[in-house]
Amino acid sequence: MPSSSPRTVAVVGATGAVGAEMIKCLESRAFPVSKLVPLASPRSAGTNVRFKGQDVRVEAVSADAFKGVDFALFAASSGVSKEFAPAAARAGVVVIDNSSAFRMEPNIPLVVPEVNGDALKRHENLIANPNCTAALMVMALKPLHDIAPVVRVIASTYQAASGAGAAAMRELEDSTRAYLDGKAYEPKVLPHPYAFNLFSHNAAMNPDTGYNGEEEKVMAEVRKLMNAPDIRIGITCVRVPVLRAHAEALTVEFSKPISVQQARDALSKFPGVRLVDDRAKNYFPMPIEASGGEDVLVGRIREDLSDPGGKSLCLFLSGDQLLKGAAQNAVQIAEALL
Amino acid sequence: MPSSSPRTVAVVGATGAVGAEMIKCLESRAFPVSKLVPLASPRSAGTNVRFKGQDVRVEAVSADAFKGVDFALFAASSGVSKEFAPAAARAGVVVIDNSSAFRMEPNIPLVVPEVNGDALKRHENLIANPNCTAALMVMALKPLHDIAPVVRVIASTYQAASGAGAAAMRELEDSTRAYLDGKAYEPKVLPHPYAFNLFSHNAAMNPDTGYNGEEEKVMAEVRKLMNAPDIRIGITCVRVPVLRAHAEALTVEFSKPISVQQARDALSKFPGVRLVDDRAKNYFPMPIEASGGEDVLVGRIREDLSDPGGKSLCLFLSGDQLLKGAAQNAVQIAEALL
Repeated sequence: MPSSSPRTVAVVGATGAVGAEMIKCLESRAFPVSKLVPLASPRSAGTNVRFKGQDVRVEAVSADAFKGVDFALFAASSGVSKEFAPAAARAGVVVIDNSSAFRMEPNIPLVVPEVNGDALKRHENLIANPNCTAALMVMALKPLHDIAPVVRVIASTYQAASGAGAAAMRELEDSTRAYLDGKAYEPKVLPHPYAFNLFSHNAAMNPDTGYNGEEEKVMAEVRKLMNAPDIRIGITCVRVPVLRAHAEALTVEFSKPISVQQARDALSKFPGVRLVDDRAKNYFPMPIEASGGEDVLVGRIREDLSDPGGKSLCLFLSGDQLLKGAAQNAVQIAEALL
Repeated sequence: MPSSSPRTVAVVGATGAVGAEMIKCLESRAFPVSKLVPLASPRSAGTNVRFKGQDVRVEAVSADAFKGVDFALFAASSGVSKEFAPAAARAGVVVIDNSSAFRMEPNIPLVVPEVNGDALKRHENLIANPNCTAALMVMALKPLHDIAPVVRVIASTYQAASGAGAAAMRELEDSTRAYLDGKAYEPKVLPHPYAFNLFSHNAAMNPDTGYNGEEEKVMAEVRKLMNAPDIRIGITCVRVPVLRAHAEALTVEFSKPISVQQARDALSKFPGVRLVDDRAKNYFPMPIEASGGEDVLVGRIREDLSDPGGKSLCLFLSGDQLLKGAAQNAVQIAEALL
């Protein structure tokens, strides 16, 4: 089959926040789709999604639904992925799974194409799409790591509502409107009030370590994506009242000094990164400008004044959680496999 | 004069966000005020402020306005402080200045009473009130520093609108309402759109170092407040869409290991700190709970997994920017001087 020949593409979780963006990305990036097969829970089956100007009926996900499918992009729960993805892969479907179910399996590639696209050379029809925060982070780390290996990362995140799904985005808007109107609002999706508030990430907390599941994923996945198991990572994940782009403040220690200019040059050249680093205008990456865009914005590149060894830089990034943090990266993986 | 005898207290900038909170704090903390003298720019003169159930007329600030005043709390610009505070101090008024004009003067105490109240023993009628982010940070650092000296701090901040004044708080609300209503909004107070957005702190940027004025203040003031000039500090200050409480994610390296339990015990006992650190409930400091309260909330205390030496802890704090970050701390300084 020539690389440009159209494929049948299933999207599992087609009505969710990430699934909807996957369908948009397939269209906007002109992925050669001969047939779109939107799949979802039985609850959403029968609704329509829009693709290339047509309504396409959403079907209930089932083992049979993958017959004749070339690529299946999963954007549902880990449970759904565990139930359907391995069988589909064994039946010959190339599965790209956005859940955390298989990310840390040694034989399953976890991929950000710009960072470790070569990991796609060895796959068994199942490829994992990384955690959003990890995917954005490695886009900034990799070009620097290629100059001097990263030794240590200290990260604080500013994570958007979209990471908790479309319902969380609505809850942010609805609770904020209620606040402005002086009305009460009982949180339904997130565990804490969200209007003009922020809170430690809502992923389940490991009571022994004090790190939550989001932080554990990022630490493990960044090492795997960078193929650098020895990078030491400390991270604090925080949910902020922003709709769909994450931001991250990073302090990065390298094995040898890297100048600010070296870092800027490397980041400017890296595909998928846009340098936004204008000190004179006090203009740096912002979620509002990352939202809806394909690039990860990186800036505020400066020496870490706390490092006596002069081997650390600080930087700040923002990227669309639903695009490079999820849907777009999954489609990019599919493109790389064409 | 016995310590309980009432005093004439001037508040300069009485109609601003911090000045208004100073007047509330004088009342709520039962500071012995015989006469309140609210002062402001000529533009605001003639309006009233409310104090102990009475309207008190705001007068224009002038050199003469400090006659008969025992304490003057300044919450105006550095320019106003430079113009009026030294003269008032020379004339015998005890001045507590919330601007950054005198904070780093070697002979002028910069004070958070719980942290370095003894610095008030040597003053020449002019005491500086610290930057809000620095004041909140030292409340968490000091009890730990007393166990093992702090060597290094890496901080990322989540700063509220209130730090840019009452007009910025209104801009956050107004621009958010406009966003939710699908209407355009042109920022007037802050340099970037604020609705569901965040951005690098709007203080002027040092183009050589890449650090902004807020970050430079925090680094310098924390060292002075802690009387620890050798603490190495790296910091990223970010403005988030929250109304009036700042939050900070800190990674703190000590000269020797401190256990999580030691840190919790020390923080629980420290006056003005409230430990909010419930891993089982995923319940940690939040701006919404710090707002309007006198305590700095501290939690998420855990080992820094990135430190190979095992001498670092991570923690997260939130405190009311207008209270402990400004007005309340100024009134506490006045109380300590009674």
